[in-house]
Amino acid sequence: MARSDGRTARQLRPVTITRNWLKHAEGSVLVEFGDTRVLCAASVEDGVPRWRRGTGEGWVTAEYAMLPRSTDTRGARESIKGKVGGRTHEISRLIGRSLRAVVDFKAMGEHTITLDCDVLQADGGTRTAAITGAYVALADGMNHLRKQRKLKSNPLIGSVCAVSVGIVQDQPRLDLNYLEDSVADTDMNVVQTGDGNFVEVQGTAEGATFDRDRLDSLLDLATEGCVELTTLQKKALSG
Amino acid sequence: MARSDGRTARQLRPVTITRNWLKHAEGSVLVEFGDTRVLCAASVEDGVPRWRRGTGEGWVTAEYAMLPRSTDTRGARESIKGKVGGRTHEISRLIGRSLRAVVDFKAMGEHTITLDCDVLQADGGTRTAAITGAYVALADGMNHLRKQRKLKSNPLIGSVCAVSVGIVQDQPRLDLNYLEDSVADTDMNVVQTGDGNFVEVQGTAEGATFDRDRLDSLLDLATEGCVELTTLQKKALSG
Amino acid sequence: MARSDGRTARQLRPVTITRNWLKHAEGSVLVEFGDTRVLCAASVEDGVPRWRRGTGEGWVTAEYAMLPRSTDTRGARESIKGKVGGRTHEISRLIGRSLRAVVDFKAMGEHTITLDCDVLQADGGTRTAAITGAYVALADGMNHLRKQRKLKSNPLIGSVCAVSVGIVQDQPRLDLNYLEDSVADTDMNVVQTGDGNFVEVQGTAEGATFDRDRLDSLLDLATEGCVELTTLQKKALSG
Amino acid sequence: MARSDGRTARQLRPVTITRNWLKHAEGSVLVEFGDTRVLCAASVEDGVPRWRRGTGEGWVTAEYAMLPRSTDTRGARESIKGKVGGRTHEISRLIGRSLRAVVDFKAMGEHTITLDCDVLQADGGTRTAAITGAYVALADGMNHLRKQRKLKSNPLIGSVCAVSVGIVQDQPRLDLNYLEDSVADTDMNVVQTGDGNFVEVQGTAEGATFDRDRLDSLLDLATEGCVELTTLQKKALSG
Amino acid sequence: MARSDGRTARQLRPVTITRNWLKHAEGSVLVEFGDTRVLCAASVEDGVPRWRRGTGEGWVTAEYAMLPRSTDTRGARESIKGKVGGRTHEISRLIGRSLRAVVDFKAMGEHTITLDCDVLQADGGTRTAAITGAYVALADGMNHLRKQRKLKSNPLIGSVCAVSVGIVQDQPRLDLNYLEDSVADTDMNVVQTGDGNFVEVQGTAEGATFDRDRLDSLLDLATEGCVELTTLQKKALSG
Amino acid sequence: MARSDGRTARQLRPVTITRNWLKHAEGSVLVEFGDTRVLCAASVEDGVPRWRRGTGEGWVTAEYAMLPRSTDTRGARESIKGKVGGRTHEISRLIGRSLRAVVDFKAMGEHTITLDCDVLQADGGTRTAAITGAYVALADGMNHLRKQRKLKSNPLIGSVCAVSVGIVQDQPRLDLNYLEDSVADTDMNVVQTGDGNFVEVQGTAEGATFDRDRLDSLLDLATEGCVELTTLQKKALSG
Repeated sequence: MARSDGRTARQLRPVTITRNWLKHAEGSVLVEFGDTRVLCAASVEDGVPRWRRGTGEGWVTAEYAMLPRSTDTRGARESIKGKVGGRTHEISRLIGRSLRAVVDFKAMGEHTITLDCDVLQADGGTRTAAITGAYVALADGMNHLRKQRKLKSNPLIGSVCAVSVGIVQDQPRLDLNYLEDSVADTDMNVVQTGDGNFVEVQGTAEGATFDRDRLDSLLDLATEGCVELTTLQKKALSG
Repeated sequence: MARSDGRTARQLRPVTITRNWLKHAEGSVLVEFGDTRVLCAASVEDGVPRWRRGTGEGWVTAEYAMLPRSTDTRGARESIKGKVGGRTHEISRLIGRSLRAVVDFKAMGEHTITLDCDVLQADGGTRTAAITGAYVALADGMNHLRKQRKLKSNPLIGSVCAVSVGIVQDQPRLDLNYLEDSVADTDMNVVQTGDGNFVEVQGTAEGATFDRDRLDSLLDLATEGCVELTTLQKKALSG
Repeated sequence: MARSDGRTARQLRPVTITRNWLKHAEGSVLVEFGDTRVLCAASVEDGVPRWRRGTGEGWVTAEYAMLPRSTDTRGARESIKGKVGGRTHEISRLIGRSLRAVVDFKAMGEHTITLDCDVLQADGGTRTAAITGAYVALADGMNHLRKQRKLKSNPLIGSVCAVSVGIVQDQPRLDLNYLEDSVADTDMNVVQTGDGNFVEVQGTAEGATFDRDRLDSLLDLATEGCVELTTLQKKALSG
Repeated sequence: MARSDGRTARQLRPVTITRNWLKHAEGSVLVEFGDTRVLCAASVEDGVPRWRRGTGEGWVTAEYAMLPRSTDTRGARESIKGKVGGRTHEISRLIGRSLRAVVDFKAMGEHTITLDCDVLQADGGTRTAAITGAYVALADGMNHLRKQRKLKSNPLIGSVCAVSVGIVQDQPRLDLNYLEDSVADTDMNVVQTGDGNFVEVQGTAEGATFDRDRLDSLLDLATEGCVELTTLQKKALSG
Repeated sequence: MARSDGRTARQLRPVTITRNWLKHAEGSVLVEFGDTRVLCAASVEDGVPRWRRGTGEGWVTAEYAMLPRSTDTRGARESIKGKVGGRTHEISRLIGRSLRAVVDFKAMGEHTITLDCDVLQADGGTRTAAITGAYVALADGMNHLRKQRKLKSNPLIGSVCAVSVGIVQDQPRLDLNYLEDSVADTDMNVVQTGDGNFVEVQGTAEGATFDRDRLDSLLDLATEGCVELTTLQKKALSG
Repeated sequence: MARSDGRTARQLRPVTITRNWLKHAEGSVLVEFGDTRVLCAASVEDGVPRWRRGTGEGWVTAEYAMLPRSTDTRGARESIKGKVGGRTHEISRLIGRSLRAVVDFKAMGEHTITLDCDVLQADGGTRTAAITGAYVALADGMNHLRKQRKLKSNPLIGSVCAVSVGIVQDQPRLDLNYLEDSVADTDMNVVQTGDGNFVEVQGTAEGATFDRDRLDSLLDLATEGCVELTTLQKKALSG
């Protein structure tokens, strides 16, 4: 059963990770999963949010958003609507939690790194691309702190990446594009560390509920994808 | 290793489902998971949201909120802050998706049922209690439509319930209370149908990432809990 | 002329005041005036709002809200509308002012008690039920401060309760339910102290303006009702 | 006991009602109660709000606001704060209700008159000045409709005015200015029709609760003031 | 080619500047350009915004708004819409920048003067009338500081006024009223100092783009108008 | 006097205009003025805003925004602040007006083109780059309509571009970068058509007011820059 873009069921789209795409940000990555294109900027600031002051620990947070015309049909700006939508909130929180899972905040000291993940072009999997790219930008943000001799030790206790998997036409597939995502029966986003542990598992029955076998095969597939993405992240960071 | 409230690791808290708690709502349930107490009200309305008009299909949606003093420390009202927070958004969306997984919208006709899930008292697991109770209120909302002879056939193609599981002190436990939730290394919310399929799986590494074995044991435990909750829902609805 | 629920014109609905309905709040009351059911929670906090700091005086404030399906027809959430409506504002302010009339802020020291009055079910007279119940929750909040030895002396210089009166079918009636309220020509909310003084008098001509005689007879009736409510409050607090 | 501005206890401040203060509005009045100065503009529009369409009846509504520097200390603009405050809401609603008490909506046909009451300068009694002036602007709005032959009959079934009364230094006083208002023990706003009936009575214990005798004497005093204001309104309208 | 109000192309409307129109404000001006009527209030406060603290320098800012019925058709209140519109923002910023161009902030010390420019009646040129009037109110605000001996030296290093010019019926005209403004091909607002320098030049092609000659003739005309307005400001301030 | 980036006073930064940068948008341009990088997307929709329906005329509008980390220091998202700032409003309106100056709306028919101008990286002159790029995206949007045979005739009656000019170190300079912009005494944005007419002139005295000679020399300089930009736009569109 061929996929619309010619991939096999277990194949990622072409993934590119371009560092230093921005001039001002302490870390910045343009990450592409096929036609999905997300700009991830790491902003490093001294100090932490009020509720964390005095703890000696740092903080990492993320904000996700889509440009109005990143999608097929133009979406209204959330700034003009005057409120952030539920989906935006949800994804921003997911990215933040995912990154924090690999950070040793004590080693980081009282600094904050904010990851802005802005979707320039959307073709499915924007949140998983964002997490994958944001980790690399975060690493560069940490590098910036290290160069300024502001770190006690390396705050990154691992790497983190993410990929979507789903059941399309009764077949488990890796890294769904928008077309596949919109017809998938089940859609799952899996966030894993570089050493293969889970950080987040979010599976949703879209068209039909799924049994444990399906769930198991999707988890297997996601783990394969994450192994590959971890390699790409390493390569980008050693580049 | 005893739990603070004396339960075994595989035991639910005492769960009660009280129907018709409200006078005006077409369906209403006060659901309790231990000290967690959520009021679920089903409001049945003719017509559907604009984007669904003319399709002949119905709609089910949910809104979750916490009373300011449902928690240990008073929280500011979202109405006064002027915006709905990310967590509230996330849970409202989760409840709506979970319920929609067991609804045949064609059978429902162009009616909308809104499930308001207001947490009166919180002690962990408010979202899973809300889903479990909201399903019963939804069933009563459907009963209301049936009595008015507005349904083509039974729109409920199954039942749905939810439970949380987590790793506490290195032990997988069912139905965490607030105390356990706040120290859990991994926290997972699982939504299942009455026949044991998955609707949603949301696992999050809080303190430490988790491997596939841990994930598998948590899924097993959740399935056990859901079997029990399904029985309680059936009993409540036949009462 | 019989009332729809069989009461005489000068009769209150059955009133119940249930203390300690919530586990977390320092004071909490479920107050019922017939089918009207309001949950009043007193939250005690150290410190006072900025504009009052350094005065050595405490503060008491209130927030009123209705659950979306407390009413016959579901109302939109103010959190989602992004603004608090005029009626909500008005009633919150009324409750706060009423309670403050019986508080000696110097005796209270720099503590704040917030009364959250959430209408679980509405059948007329929600604001008067809220004031009547909130006073009892406030008293328990003060008890909490006393037990912590944070009070200089008893800050409650009296008790306060409230009742609605109105002209229905040309007859002055006590404690209108929703049905009566919606056809009343005049509607008046009266807040009184336990020793029979007025705290607030808010009379509104709904269908027809009213002369001084009518006004006088409504005030008499309200005073009767408040005497009874004061007795019920005392009983609840001594229980 | 002399008042700071030399008035007797039962004396109004100098009241002036200037019609046609604005060029565009269908009715407009600059009303002054001493140094309190409120601009009332009546805007006449064809049609009524959605919920009233097809009833054949008109609608009258009001919006009250204060210019930032109408007061002694500059207040922040509600447009910039992004929300309308409780007090503003409360007064807007009071003005609207007061005016509607003297309107026959059937006679008015499906037209809307909006009364904008903007306080240019505040020195106590802004809401009562607003009601008193808005009635005159409303009458001119109705005149405008009559000239356009859009009215079935005279929609004004009476006139309406308002005045504040209060207990200052243990003495009941009429039409409090800001200085008096800020030290008053009780503050009451009374809205009456031209023939002496009550439309609204809003009494509040500010510093001390009040007994029935006090209440009665305040009501007497307010009635005296309203007789005088009614005369001034008639004179203005016949001018 | 006569103008609708009989003026010549190079003639201002009758301009009046009435000082001390308000009782509370430290400076206040009712400025009229024909039927355009703007109330400008200067509020003087100790201290400066947070970002300016500790610099020893003062701050001047402005807020512009229109009363709902200042215009021919009633406009919705921005407070009720919950957001400030683009045009309001734009004009507030313009007034603030214009005034700041003639202020020596060091001489002013850490004080803030806020200019509230509220349009009571609009007939074109509200922003230019606002700037012209606000300068006079600002001067009175500075006088207030001087009388309190809070100034190091005179902070006003010049005066500032503004006028609109435009191409109507192919003719450059000074100080457009609303009728002219709405049919103008080009509309330009020019802010100048008393000694003839430019502070702001904002020209907009409304119906047709304009060449350099047109632009030059409009600038000439504006300069003529500003000379006259400067004289009127001086007269008002010496009055 | 050399400029920091080595340019002469009358020299533009390197300008590149990359068409079709996005996959979904009907027209899209990445425009770069040196390090300033703006993504302009044209979204073509059938129909026009409500107030324009039935006129047979089209509409063109624009929305400008900056990514949080497009600047040297991270800025808060307007979506999260819940309101659009004054500067954003101002620039969105400027871009819209500028583009509309070269559109024949009758020829366009009832279609709307929205130009989203999102600043990916800011180094001064973002609004002028946005206008220059948005015109090219608009042209592609029109091309899209033409290919669909939805146009009566060519709606573009000219081209439009923009450039900033300013006085830096007493010298008039073309196309200021951020560094120059922040120290400029006068800052002017000039929008011109391809045939050299003015659409907008916005000059602001930042540090010092400016006389007519200065103004004239800045206008000359801007016109030179616009000639060059027009050539680049033509080249891009013929590419």
